[in-house]
Amino acid sequence: MTVSVDDIRAAAARLRGRAIRPPLLESARLNDRLGGRLLVKPECLQRTGSFKFRGAYNTLSAMDPAVRARGVIAYSSGNHAQGVALSAKLFGAPATIIMPHDAPELKKRNTAEYGAEVVLYDRYSENREALGERLMADRGLTLVKPYDQESVIAGQGTVGLEIAEQCAEAGVTPDFALCPAGGGGLIGGVSLALKDAFPQIAVHPAEPADFDDWGRSLAGGVRVAVDPSARSICDAILTPTPGEITFEIGRRTLSAGVGVSDEEALAAMRDAFLELKIVAEPGGVVALAALLSGRVELSGRTAVVVVSGGNVDPALFRRALDMTEMPSAA
Amino acid sequence: MTVSVDDIRAAAARLRGRAIRPPLLESARLNDRLGGRLLVKPECLQRTGSFKFRGAYNTLSAMDPAVRARGVIAYSSGNHAQGVALSAKLFGAPATIIMPHDAPELKKRNTAEYGAEVVLYDRYSENREALGERLMADRGLTLVKPYDQESVIAGQGTVGLEIAEQCAEAGVTPDFALCPAGGGGLIGGVSLALKDAFPQIAVHPAEPADFDDWGRSLAGGVRVAVDPSARSICDAILTPTPGEITFEIGRRTLSAGVGVSDEEALAAMRDAFLELKIVAEPGGVVALAALLSGRVELSGRTAVVVVSGGNVDPALFRRALDMTEMPSAA
Repeated sequence: MTVSVDDIRAAAARLRGRAIRPPLLESARLNDRLGGRLLVKPECLQRTGSFKFRGAYNTLSAMDPAVRARGVIAYSSGNHAQGVALSAKLFGAPATIIMPHDAPELKKRNTAEYGAEVVLYDRYSENREALGERLMADRGLTLVKPYDQESVIAGQGTVGLEIAEQCAEAGVTPDFALCPAGGGGLIGGVSLALKDAFPQIAVHPAEPADFDDWGRSLAGGVRVAVDPSARSICDAILTPTPGEITFEIGRRTLSAGVGVSDEEALAAMRDAFLELKIVAEPGGVVALAALLSGRVELSGRTAVVVVSGGNVDPALFRRALDMTEMPSAA
Repeated sequence: MTVSVDDIRAAAARLRGRAIRPPLLESARLNDRLGGRLLVKPECLQRTGSFKFRGAYNTLSAMDPAVRARGVIAYSSGNHAQGVALSAKLFGAPATIIMPHDAPELKKRNTAEYGAEVVLYDRYSENREALGERLMADRGLTLVKPYDQESVIAGQGTVGLEIAEQCAEAGVTPDFALCPAGGGGLIGGVSLALKDAFPQIAVHPAEPADFDDWGRSLAGGVRVAVDPSARSICDAILTPTPGEITFEIGRRTLSAGVGVSDEEALAAMRDAFLELKIVAEPGGVVALAALLSGRVELSGRTAVVVVSGGNVDPALFRRALDMTEMPSAA
């Protein structure tokens, strides 16, 4: 059980005309500042404000219509929730979403506004899987997993397919790519597509510094979990450990991980506002933050960075706008 | 002397691989709220943060290389300035930019950072054209006008060509389009391309309510000027009167104008943040504001709206984030 580039191509065919195809953005001033060429894939512009629509829509699209009509269920910190909720709405199917009670208000409200039923749980004391299984049994619902499911990974991989196509159109061969990593559905699919198109490319996961499960798991060759006491504002990617399927992909496709602080994520949100005119959320901007903070050196090279989402409360975005200028990476 | 759709196609060929091609964005929740289908062309994502790069690059691209090498000059509230400055930088030519002293700090700084020399003047007491002509004579520079120049209008028109192509790809025939109007370079070119692709489409200029020179000029059939005491936060489109060439185009292609208040522009900036994840500036968002404020009814129809720029100071963006919810148009 794994995902092939053909699975990603099939997902791309299902998503054609349904998903937004964000262009690669480029800023002459960011290039000057970093001393290289930075291409940004802004999945915050995707329907529902994150890449998650791709995997959810691909999954529902491939479901048996009678099963789909009974309804789907998902557990999610918010972006997967919205992706599943809108996909279900487009197929006329009911959606039940299990969300942590401390998810951003905007994400809870938006999910409900797509017509889904929202069920809340405590991220630190309750087991969301147990809750979900009870609801599935009671209601005959089909689970759409947030990352550890082939159809979801294939859908997210279409981001990588588009990056490869857009790089080819621009005549660019990127030296490396940076992508946010939570459970790994996005970076799993993206890395498969990018490695297929550019065999020499290095694909690095970016994470909050205290949620460096990908970095540590890749370094050690086995999945490890983060300290349960860890906290971060990067709510979209606060998974304790890489997924099983996604790690099997990632151990073959990924290079070393990089961790960023919450402050570096906020500063990158501000720079994305100033230089790219996109709204990025903390968890969505960690890969960009890895470059802008100087933790990863661009000098003389070309990199592709995925900004994976933009579902951020106005109050937190104000904090980013209030950030003073960071010292630039020399 | 006017602009043809072939001129716009030629501009598109020059811009290929140089300009960003923003996708049409769509929000299921905005569609629900407005009761129709809204497609947004986000030119805030364009290089330099506005559509102005297109007209400037097309103009420099068509210049005699020896003349171009002596340098170009532009007067602009900021977005045209950045478009000319980056285009000149890409061609290795010097750029001199005349800017109003009260232009947003961000625009002044960004223009200088593209390598241009910035010369400031007083928007309400000095004649920028006289100042520009003196500098042209002294330095042998070539003027790149902000709107009333065929090559500039043709470049901006590529926005309309892309909208038409993207609508065709999506199988959509828009009922009407709304576009911000300052001097009219953008809406002039866009309306030519859209009318060519969709002969039945109505194209409406959107303006600040007190800078309704397009609305009044179209209603009366002759160019009229706004009250010189008018003020607005929509700095990008505060022209006193439509351009000559652009009005000759607009009188053939445009339908009635619509004016919006500064508060409606701020509310639309907030909604663009929440629902589309784009950063829009006040003057860039007036067409979206015309719909979201309920001044233009979408109900049951499909509209394309151009968001023309995103170069806004963080302080003003904070004001938009602080806006309370507007009563929705019933």
